[in-house]
Amino acid sequence: MSTRKLLVVGAHSADFVWRAAGAVATHTAAGGEALVVALSYGERGESGELWKREGQTEDNVKRIRHEEATKAAAAVGAEFQGFDLGDYPLRVDDAAIERLAELMRDFAPDVVLTHPDKDPFNPDHPVAHAAVARARLLTSGAGVASGFRTAPPSEFLVFEPHQPELCGFLPTVYVDITSVFDRKVEAMSHMAAQRYLQEYYAQRADHRGNHARKVTGNAEIRQAEAFQRLLPNVVGAL
Amino acid sequence: MSTRKLLVVGAHSADFVWRAAGAVATHTAAGGEALVVALSYGERGESGELWKREGQTEDNVKRIRHEEATKAAAAVGAEFQGFDLGDYPLRVDDAAIERLAELMRDFAPDVVLTHPDKDPFNPDHPVAHAAVARARLLTSGAGVASGFRTAPPSEFLVFEPHQPELCGFLPTVYVDITSVFDRKVEAMSHMAAQRYLQEYYAQRADHRGNHARKVTGNAEIRQAEAFQRLLPNVVGAL
Amino acid sequence: MSTRKLLVVGAHSADFVWRAAGAVATHTAAGGEALVVALSYGERGESGELWKREGQTEDNVKRIRHEEATKAAAAVGAEFQGFDLGDYPLRVDDAAIERLAELMRDFAPDVVLTHPDKDPFNPDHPVAHAAVARARLLTSGAGVASGFRTAPPSEFLVFEPHQPELCGFLPTVYVDITSVFDRKVEAMSHMAAQRYLQEYYAQRADHRGNHARKVTGNAEIRQAEAFQRLLPNVVGAL
Amino acid sequence: MSTRKLLVVGAHSADFVWRAAGAVATHTAAGGEALVVALSYGERGESGELWKREGQTEDNVKRIRHEEATKAAAAVGAEFQGFDLGDYPLRVDDAAIERLAELMRDFAPDVVLTHPDKDPFNPDHPVAHAAVARARLLTSGAGVASGFRTAPPSEFLVFEPHQPELCGFLPTVYVDITSVFDRKVEAMSHMAAQRYLQEYYAQRADHRGNHARKVTGNAEIRQAEAFQRLLPNVVGAL
Amino acid sequence: MSTRKLLVVGAHSADFVWRAAGAVATHTAAGGEALVVALSYGERGESGELWKREGQTEDNVKRIRHEEATKAAAAVGAEFQGFDLGDYPLRVDDAAIERLAELMRDFAPDVVLTHPDKDPFNPDHPVAHAAVARARLLTSGAGVASGFRTAPPSEFLVFEPHQPELCGFLPTVYVDITSVFDRKVEAMSHMAAQRYLQEYYAQRADHRGNHARKVTGNAEIRQAEAFQRLLPNVVGAL
Amino acid sequence: MSTRKLLVVGAHSADFVWRAAGAVATHTAAGGEALVVALSYGERGESGELWKREGQTEDNVKRIRHEEATKAAAAVGAEFQGFDLGDYPLRVDDAAIERLAELMRDFAPDVVLTHPDKDPFNPDHPVAHAAVARARLLTSGAGVASGFRTAPPSEFLVFEPHQPELCGFLPTVYVDITSVFDRKVEAMSHMAAQRYLQEYYAQRADHRGNHARKVTGNAEIRQAEAFQRLLPNVVGAL
Repeated sequence: MSTRKLLVVGAHSADFVWRAAGAVATHTAAGGEALVVALSYGERGESGELWKREGQTEDNVKRIRHEEATKAAAAVGAEFQGFDLGDYPLRVDDAAIERLAELMRDFAPDVVLTHPDKDPFNPDHPVAHAAVARARLLTSGAGVASGFRTAPPSEFLVFEPHQPELCGFLPTVYVDITSVFDRKVEAMSHMAAQRYLQEYYAQRADHRGNHARKVTGNAEIRQAEAFQRLLPNVVGAL
Repeated sequence: MSTRKLLVVGAHSADFVWRAAGAVATHTAAGGEALVVALSYGERGESGELWKREGQTEDNVKRIRHEEATKAAAAVGAEFQGFDLGDYPLRVDDAAIERLAELMRDFAPDVVLTHPDKDPFNPDHPVAHAAVARARLLTSGAGVASGFRTAPPSEFLVFEPHQPELCGFLPTVYVDITSVFDRKVEAMSHMAAQRYLQEYYAQRADHRGNHARKVTGNAEIRQAEAFQRLLPNVVGAL
Repeated sequence: MSTRKLLVVGAHSADFVWRAAGAVATHTAAGGEALVVALSYGERGESGELWKREGQTEDNVKRIRHEEATKAAAAVGAEFQGFDLGDYPLRVDDAAIERLAELMRDFAPDVVLTHPDKDPFNPDHPVAHAAVARARLLTSGAGVASGFRTAPPSEFLVFEPHQPELCGFLPTVYVDITSVFDRKVEAMSHMAAQRYLQEYYAQRADHRGNHARKVTGNAEIRQAEAFQRLLPNVVGAL
Repeated sequence: MSTRKLLVVGAHSADFVWRAAGAVATHTAAGGEALVVALSYGERGESGELWKREGQTEDNVKRIRHEEATKAAAAVGAEFQGFDLGDYPLRVDDAAIERLAELMRDFAPDVVLTHPDKDPFNPDHPVAHAAVARARLLTSGAGVASGFRTAPPSEFLVFEPHQPELCGFLPTVYVDITSVFDRKVEAMSHMAAQRYLQEYYAQRADHRGNHARKVTGNAEIRQAEAFQRLLPNVVGAL
Repeated sequence: MSTRKLLVVGAHSADFVWRAAGAVATHTAAGGEALVVALSYGERGESGELWKREGQTEDNVKRIRHEEATKAAAAVGAEFQGFDLGDYPLRVDDAAIERLAELMRDFAPDVVLTHPDKDPFNPDHPVAHAAVARARLLTSGAGVASGFRTAPPSEFLVFEPHQPELCGFLPTVYVDITSVFDRKVEAMSHMAAQRYLQEYYAQRADHRGNHARKVTGNAEIRQAEAFQRLLPNVVGAL
Repeated sequence: MSTRKLLVVGAHSADFVWRAAGAVATHTAAGGEALVVALSYGERGESGELWKREGQTEDNVKRIRHEEATKAAAAVGAEFQGFDLGDYPLRVDDAAIERLAELMRDFAPDVVLTHPDKDPFNPDHPVAHAAVARARLLTSGAGVASGFRTAPPSEFLVFEPHQPELCGFLPTVYVDITSVFDRKVEAMSHMAAQRYLQEYYAQRADHRGNHARKVTGNAEIRQAEAFQRLLPNVVGAL
């Protein structure tokens, strides 16, 4: 029974679904706790279907996106929290970084997941990365007694972006999500505003499953998600 | 009780000691099997103290180096095998690659360790890397039924070179070797021809231990070894 | 009406189908000429389904693979030629490089496509890359009068490998293959020995189509293939 | 007759002349429209000759630089606009980014050119890059219906910096400017404050012409300019 | 007798000791002048031992750290100056950058040393790097007459971070500090708040000395420090 | 009075002239000794003008190229030696590497210059690099007593290739060749077979001089050559 805690931080409320819902589900299925934070709802820039409805408003989009994300998180056993900082552009000031750091000190995650530091197709993803990386370091300190409250250092990984090669993404971990893939499919089904991506990321999970089979020779793996560790993994044996 | 098998391939007979003896020891301490292959004895280029003795010969150096490596391997629970292909320069022809591939098909390692692909201070280390990488792929095939005998694909990592940054080495795994560090110290003590390195790599293990403490916040870690995975690590959960 | 000539060189006879059949088809659909060269038939390592048949022989596999590749090439308007140099391992000696260079001097391609220079999952792809790069330079010379027969320098690109990020592949060109996608599907259907890849690469073409839509905003694009140019593209205007 | 629109954004008013005047001229010669934006006049840091005159003032330098840039732009068929944000240091706040994004939404460029993201010799060039990249993404959105006004995504390239290797510049496109080189020479002649650069960049155009001849074998090319695409180029055929 | 001037800028008051005290000492031993600037005292995040004392306050920690740094600087012949901008997080606003630039214009250093631009273990080091790089460029200008006060361009290097490979640090210069190593040891001894690092960096100096011996074959070298030049070194002969 | 020894190894007999003649001249002007080795004469691929003469033969081209290189070397105070291994393709077998290693053991150079390891425009340059790197390591050994004759390790740099960015060339050293530039011009004038390059590389020396002025602020520098160090530079002080 895992007692590990996983924190996923996305720039927009749907990001965690496409890129990490499977890893969240394997984590909670093992007994771990998972918390999803969205810095914005992606209300202006990533809510395509919703803006096709006449008379749509930002407030209404945010309300719908909050509901969708809450349901999607629940589908993989996680809690959802929205910081509502605005999107296109997302701006994270010192107060918002401190808010995120405080959340990390309270939650004390074992693992933190977020976007890669580069994305030539999105103005908000790199902003989210920088904020998470900074809040995480302000939380853990330098590993010595400090003049502020700290939490132990967490493992730090980034999830797969939409055009991985162009974001400098290099997969170093494949998580086998075969046993929880139906949970990811359900989580994706709640994202009504971005329908095409449901098909795209279901196929992508199959492809990463194929890659993981090639790496291991394990024919049982059907679906996987790809991640990149930013810090060395400390293990007891290879 | 681990049933995993570890294969370490070095260009010269002492390479595994400085760079991976701790990982070998944690592996065998857990019940795993370990095999060390040296492509040469480093008899011409890396047997400094021995060549200071008057009347020294290559054959005699090779004999001594074989004994030393056998003892060092035993100290960490591993078997040692020398391919005796010559050093400075090490040359690995098609027959030697096939010999290594056959060994891999028979031993069927779960993990393979060798040198990084680049070393501006050593003519033989990159040759060893290329040979191991090639033999490994000829062993595993493409993951489909093949017209030749195969073994399942192994995990593939490189160990730490002497001047890591200049060899393009980027640590992605720290193995905590605290509990077996005395085994590594004993293994190193058998390498009479390269005395200064015993002190150097004992300190280096302390430094990597410090790095691993910083990464994890785990104050119990005293010594560690650093490795770089060349292929994604497939896991069941983060 | 294009008069350009395209040369595709793969390590194994099926490589061009998954990775470049669409680009070949757009090329021939525009009136251009295309020639596919396979350095081997992938008879030992990449003919999975065929080796499941009892009593299978290398010669028989090669015969079948030759037929399949010829049909697949025809489906996209190209000619197929097999060098039959053997696979797992593919070895390209000086004579084979000269044979390839002579073919290039005769055919005088405007564009040459092959594998990237790195592939941690395949022993033969990097060998093919090195051979093509070398033959190409021995063909074009240094752009001055030479003591050997030359052909004009060709554009030089690599096609998408199976695990792109791990092969260092960075897409710099997307070819819109929407109008010829049925041709690629037919070409893939001839590759009976590697059935799963038909589905994989059909989906992959959709994904690259999605990427190309993101880059251009052009909603007409449905499928695309990704390539990386190794040399600057010389144009008359941006 | 081209109907394409080209937007060039420089940190200082003369940047476009040295690095992209030829590409602008080929663009307008083909019938396209071109707009040059300078975020500052380079009045403090890049107006060497002008500051040698006694009693010089910032306002006077800016006036002269505005005139010079307007004439240079006219020489290659482009319009010039100065944002006058100050130089050494250039600071681009949220309002200035929104101003640039609004300009992009109105002008709807097919191609955007600016500085690379790194320049160890200039404090303002990377600031300009970051501003242009951000404004461009806020303009195009994510390719779906959005809660703000958008324009179609543009091609995005960076022009050649003064010490290319040290700025991480990797040329991926050479534009043949042979037929308009006299236009570039005239444009450069208007930059009285930076005389030596006229000779430097005329020779540099010859060198890039030599490189483009090497790449193509086309002996007609005399001068060229080098650019790096930051996003894949989507084409109908190779 | 050297008349060169060396400026070392650290994020926290102890940084220069571990990473550059030897280079400072060789510089002053040759007759050069050295100034150490600390942007903060590391009072909150890097004063471990001090925070173990009951009733400790930030002001008291800063006072002690100021004294320690002043003594350590004196031990290697340098002057110490604290900017007291706060740590964890260090924030450097425009006024602080201008203050640093003014200091550079007055001191006119021949060489500037600071942190690398990346450090996944420290939130303040990259901030310090960016500030120093920016102030340095605002000081030197573009090498032409300018509308502001300038100083000649300085050599620009970064010192070794704690986990070098993970900070992207590539050593390009080893400074032989054998003759002044006792000065570095004394400087380190003043840093009571970070005791373990005294042993760590003494061993590290031995290791870099070993590396420098390998590079040169010069057996006289015992200790060295590693640096990376960010700009080409201009020399009269190789 | 320098007693240092410089070894320059080119793939073809003219390579050293364009890329390092200035550095050779500063070296010999200071009293140092310089030896130029050409692995081939570039007789087939890089002797453009000579092959325009009717009835030209390889032997005659080699004879002329030998004379030209000898004169060019003399112009900068160096001796010239041709290994005559053939070009397009250059092949360097084990015996040729041993010949080069023996030459290095005899000459015992302080500095070795050759091509970068990558050149997408030339089949022979990377072959030369690999041969020099290997021979150099077989010469110096591992810095300990060895079973073969050794010479002290030399500094190892690569000179500027024709299209630097595309060869991965990153300048780390500029040699000021102002005082000997007339020597380089004379050396270049002997290369009758490659006339255009005389103008190209004279301008290139001016450009690198401009870059070196920017780096140092030293207005006396007129011409420079660019190099990249492959190993750290060990110095007594910064």
